[in-house]
Amino acid sequence: MFTIAIAGLGTVGAGVVRLLRQNADLIAPRAGTQIVIKAVSAQVKSRKRDCDLSGIDWIDNPEKLAQVPGVDAVVELVGGSSGVPRAIAESALKNGKHFVTANKALIAAHGVELARLAENNKVQLMFEAAVAGGIPVIKTIREGLAGNRISTVRGILNGTCNYILTRMREAKLSFADALGEAQKRGYAEADPTADVDGQDTANKLAILAALAFGTTPDLASIRMDGIRRITQLDLQFAEELGCRIKLLGVARLTPAGLEQHVGPSLIAKSSPLARVEGALNAVSMHGDFIGDLMLEGQGAGAEPTASAVVADIIDLARGRTQPAFGVPSAQLKTIGPAHATVAARYYMRLHVMDKPGVVADISAILRDETISIESLIQRGKSATESVPVVITTHDANAAAVYRGVDKIAHLKTVVERPCLLQIED
Amino acid sequence: MFTIAIAGLGTVGAGVVRLLRQNADLIAPRAGTQIVIKAVSAQVKSRKRDCDLSGIDWIDNPEKLAQVPGVDAVVELVGGSSGVPRAIAESALKNGKHFVTANKALIAAHGVELARLAENNKVQLMFEAAVAGGIPVIKTIREGLAGNRISTVRGILNGTCNYILTRMREAKLSFADALGEAQKRGYAEADPTADVDGQDTANKLAILAALAFGTTPDLASIRMDGIRRITQLDLQFAEELGCRIKLLGVARLTPAGLEQHVGPSLIAKSSPLARVEGALNAVSMHGDFIGDLMLEGQGAGAEPTASAVVADIIDLARGRTQPAFGVPSAQLKTIGPAHATVAARYYMRLHVMDKPGVVADISAILRDETISIESLIQRGKSATESVPVVITTHDANAAAVYRGVDKIAHLKTVVERPCLLQIED
Repeated sequence: MFTIAIAGLGTVGAGVVRLLRQNADLIAPRAGTQIVIKAVSAQVKSRKRDCDLSGIDWIDNPEKLAQVPGVDAVVELVGGSSGVPRAIAESALKNGKHFVTANKALIAAHGVELARLAENNKVQLMFEAAVAGGIPVIKTIREGLAGNRISTVRGILNGTCNYILTRMREAKLSFADALGEAQKRGYAEADPTADVDGQDTANKLAILAALAFGTTPDLASIRMDGIRRITQLDLQFAEELGCRIKLLGVARLTPAGLEQHVGPSLIAKSSPLARVEGALNAVSMHGDFIGDLMLEGQGAGAEPTASAVVADIIDLARGRTQPAFGVPSAQLKTIGPAHATVAARYYMRLHVMDKPGVVADISAILRDETISIESLIQRGKSATESVPVVITTHDANAAAVYRGVDKIAHLKTVVERPCLLQIED
Repeated sequence: MFTIAIAGLGTVGAGVVRLLRQNADLIAPRAGTQIVIKAVSAQVKSRKRDCDLSGIDWIDNPEKLAQVPGVDAVVELVGGSSGVPRAIAESALKNGKHFVTANKALIAAHGVELARLAENNKVQLMFEAAVAGGIPVIKTIREGLAGNRISTVRGILNGTCNYILTRMREAKLSFADALGEAQKRGYAEADPTADVDGQDTANKLAILAALAFGTTPDLASIRMDGIRRITQLDLQFAEELGCRIKLLGVARLTPAGLEQHVGPSLIAKSSPLARVEGALNAVSMHGDFIGDLMLEGQGAGAEPTASAVVADIIDLARGRTQPAFGVPSAQLKTIGPAHATVAARYYMRLHVMDKPGVVADISAILRDETISIESLIQRGKSATESVPVVITTHDANAAAVYRGVDKIAHLKTVVERPCLLQIED
């Protein structure tokens, strides 16, 4: 018998309870033992929930779950990086209980401390569900690719953004309308900030990079941009360039350090990532022996997330162990950020006053930053006197490009801050 | 220290030696210990190989590798389901050594016996590299999806066939020319039978189905067809139907039993599997909680296969254990085949004499087998007096379709055996 206690009975928590009950017959032989839910804790006891809690103890204080006699593992499905989940994690690990979580913010911010705590207490810290929902990408990097020197991890890690971008393209919706539709369909929260501005993707990317490169998660170094400024014009230009626009999280090991960024990107339609549509997630990895590997599936939702949480629980019940980030926490490296030296191609969309000399001013700024223009397209005449200009660059230094964009944004003839997209191969 | 002995130093064996030496610095912390190659064995000692064997003992008889003092695991990379690899496996397991193999034929035919032998000797049987090369699909089904009731596994499991079909479509080559090109580029063997006639895919499918459904691999029940009869005409019709032609292995759990088949299939271009091109492999799974998950990557070649072999070795060094097929061998079920009752849509391409009454004869046979025609297209006039006819059916009973095709093949006005493709969603 392997005994768990669950903190949090929202959509994911209820999904885990349902899964463990519904598939108990299958899970026991795979886990080598019966998995029993001994106790649960959530904010409101009386709420009606989509799962059967009969025979399960109710504990008011989730930090006390670790002290329920006989519990082997505490499963945290509360969410948020703030006090409560962290306190639950610490109480579990300090009490010698395994800790399973779907909490990306917690792991991105405090993962190494918790990994160390787990090692000191000879228990496991597991977080498969924290990245890309049902897709077993943590296990794949940590175990499936363990023989490889990984050079790149790229992912569509936020289903809300991918849904919005897909609907903007397919139905020619504005960002606002696509967001409204996503909210109506339950793909986006009332406050969509964490999703559409890139924070959620950044949390997940920091975790994947830590696993892939054996480093401590370095959230602070992730350059981050969201999808709010993407317009129909950008989607139209993307089409002309043979590309799709995706919110990508990208981590690359370069000789100069670790390059990590989150932002809307142009990616060639021929790339497998470009074809991942709707609310799906996908992660693509490159290793020196495996070459390219891509995983595609549902990155959110009660059922897929429960699938990942239960996979962790079964691993624990089977006694399969490993350091949380693949190598012992003391051996995790610190690799400095490589932003300043990375070269990449960029797409820049501006709105400028339709006056002589504007293009000359912009070109001069780019020349001064040694940014070589691949194409410059000024399109149409506008009633409002501002016209769009799209510039694509050859390989350019990232830091120079940001400086250039800043300078361009300050030109009097430039109407709004330029929309900058990295062009991914 | 975790010590291995390797039998077979062909392209994959040499790849494993290279990987373990080249990435030793990364692997030790991931495995929790140094991995040491103690001994190797291959047919010809003097051959020049693309790896460094210094410091490694040479053993003439691969069955003796298990007796080399200090060896923890024997790695079999000889290939073939015949005597030698099986003898190596048995000698390893009986001597209490873990056994790692890339040998799909061995596992499809003798996997359960070997799993039992491993259990009795308290060691592990590992075969990640046996299916889809570098793609960690065994681990994904066995561990990543362990909470799910899996209903379907489908895969493009043979890179040779996918390369041939891709080149036939892209460059309008005949099967023979595309095969020739594949042979020239090293994607196909001099004798391509096992690849192009479906046996290789069937071996892999039997293993995946065993893991997904907790059954003993049932190679004998797999209905199998290859790609030799695919012509430009079929590719053209596929295009008109909005489909791609792929050699798929499909296993589905139905109320009537386990449906397994290997054959060229029409698959809608919108399906992720349809977009897997060239020599790549992909596996798509459906589980009740995870929904659809697809993995795509390199299914063959020295490096990707070595990546999978080494992942198994690292699992062993870490002490991660599980029954070879996910559940103990005694608990593997036997699920009867469901061929007779499965309903599916089919595509049938015939060459018929251009005479009155031919279509009436064919239609009558289909009617008698209660097969409902969705479309029937007779195209053009032929100088040789035979013309192509393409029929697509509504959902039809598989057994009835095979009987119908047999009867149609015997009509005097039908010039050659019909080419039959299942239409996959």
